[in-house]
Amino acid sequence: MSLLGIDIGGTKILFAAFDSSGSLLVKKTDIVRGAEGKAAAEIILAGAAGIISEMESLGNPVRAAGISIPGIYRRETGSVWAPNIPGWEDYPLEREVEKITGNIPLVIDNDRACSILGEFWKGNAQGCSDVVFLAFGTGIGAGIISGGRIIRGKNDIAGATGWMALNPAFEDKYTRCGCLEYWGSGDGMARTAIELMEKDKGYEGVLATRDRSNITSEVVFSAYDNGDPLAAKTIDICVVYWGMAIANFISIFNPEKIILGGGLFGPASRFIDRIKSEAVKWAQPVSAKTVKIEIASLGSVAAATGAAYLAHQHLNNVKDV
Amino acid sequence: MSLLGIDIGGTKILFAAFDSSGSLLVKKTDIVRGAEGKAAAEIILAGAAGIISEMESLGNPVRAAGISIPGIYRRETGSVWAPNIPGWEDYPLEREVEKITGNIPLVIDNDRACSILGEFWKGNAQGCSDVVFLAFGTGIGAGIISGGRIIRGKNDIAGATGWMALNPAFEDKYTRCGCLEYWGSGDGMARTAIELMEKDKGYEGVLATRDRSNITSEVVFSAYDNGDPLAAKTIDICVVYWGMAIANFISIFNPEKIILGGGLFGPASRFIDRIKSEAVKWAQPVSAKTVKIEIASLGSVAAATGAAYLAHQHLNNVKDV
Repeated sequence: MSLLGIDIGGTKILFAAFDSSGSLLVKKTDIVRGAEGKAAAEIILAGAAGIISEMESLGNPVRAAGISIPGIYRRETGSVWAPNIPGWEDYPLEREVEKITGNIPLVIDNDRACSILGEFWKGNAQGCSDVVFLAFGTGIGAGIISGGRIIRGKNDIAGATGWMALNPAFEDKYTRCGCLEYWGSGDGMARTAIELMEKDKGYEGVLATRDRSNITSEVVFSAYDNGDPLAAKTIDICVVYWGMAIANFISIFNPEKIILGGGLFGPASRFIDRIKSEAVKWAQPVSAKTVKIEIASLGSVAAATGAAYLAHQHLNNVKDV
Repeated sequence: MSLLGIDIGGTKILFAAFDSSGSLLVKKTDIVRGAEGKAAAEIILAGAAGIISEMESLGNPVRAAGISIPGIYRRETGSVWAPNIPGWEDYPLEREVEKITGNIPLVIDNDRACSILGEFWKGNAQGCSDVVFLAFGTGIGAGIISGGRIIRGKNDIAGATGWMALNPAFEDKYTRCGCLEYWGSGDGMARTAIELMEKDKGYEGVLATRDRSNITSEVVFSAYDNGDPLAAKTIDICVVYWGMAIANFISIFNPEKIILGGGLFGPASRFIDRIKSEAVKWAQPVSAKTVKIEIASLGSVAAATGAAYLAHQHLNNVKDV
């Protein structure tokens, strides 16, 4: 038997089949960017149908499926809210996907929960009862296991880490995305570099030659690699915000481990030692001494693995981790 | 039958007896400040013995006891760490108190857990599955219930809120107590007022006439009441830090309620509307819209009530809340 894990992102969808011990068997991706409402769902249905029949023909049929969604899953109605997919303000995803999965049990959860569960099953969080997965990418979110249970919040939107307040006084520019996300996300890195350029009229480095709309976190990282001082300054600022955010999770949750993932870790992993020292400086000292800070080990397959884990747990009637 | 709740503070100890529904029957306090090691324990033993025999003679014997400690309780060894009581780095409190309580079941927990459990049983957190108790006093701590369970952390030191990082860049002065506690505790208010005076040489208000070692949060509140501009500025700063800390709990836990307690709430309760607007400005907007921010309703009896609740739950073999 096999388990299907589907990770719906804002840009692409990952379909993956696992065996019951969590080993990856088959993996496919499809592009979802641009698709709206029902059209986005059709892409998911087609991909799911494909992998289900493939596993069937391999003599290893899918016995349960899990879906990770980039937003909120509403348990009562089976509908989802995913801000990056137009028309998915309250989309009946469960009902739609069940058209394909039929009698195969289906579980849906948000990407924060799925990512930490993936790392818990097969990655760096194995055996942990208290562990935080921090995803730094376009957005910033946290999947949290505390005392062996997923932290969900009253309306399933716990872990909204991009909104962490880290710099008084409040500025209007934080209103759309939150203070930490303004400074410490992928877009934030680009924004910071541009703000620094606007202040430093004498700067003539590689970023100055770029059209500002083409400056991304990748561009900043590559400028850093070429010794650009403004890129270095940008990264100095990010390291402080990343460190402060990590410190706050250490002090509040006293976890055994913090796992850094998302698109930025990745390239920002080379700064792990600087980020650790920044975090340890701020955090509760006893917790800071015992916590391990590590890079995620599953990369882009974490959320799909976690979705498959939820399917596995559902099949075995196990609640939570 | 009755339940005994003991709240050990850094200054005084509260002994309280409750009936099985949590109504307060008898309450006594004793001073512990200055007592060290075994001497501090003797005060607790004497007080506990007194109330146990009093309840016996009232025909309402104590059936279970709970103790709230200002630090960490180590379950495996029954010992406690309480930084404000000299000699309690690893004190065998459980074994000592059992000399008095004998066959009466005894439960020990930290004051953060006890305070939120007190509010959960008889105060403003009744019926809540997701709620945070923020205690602002000499120190700053959080008692957290998420998904119906107390957040404890790997080593029982979750909720160390005084260490919340809220203002880049790091300053050495945060090393001893944490950034939030530096600015937003009772001592922090006094410190801020003094720092402001040092910067504002022209200030000639009521605080300038005071010996600096006598400036406390009470003095600042009373100066504020008399229209002192420097006290008002001090409170402006505190409102920002309190609001940011509350916002971070809203975004991370998506709770239905945040309860403000500790010695400062109290006098800072009059600023609740300003604190709410500050918090809402920073926090994840959906969570900010649904959360209620309220002042604690049990005042100084919260932790003793929670300790008695733990005793009650232990008696009824109920784990957690």
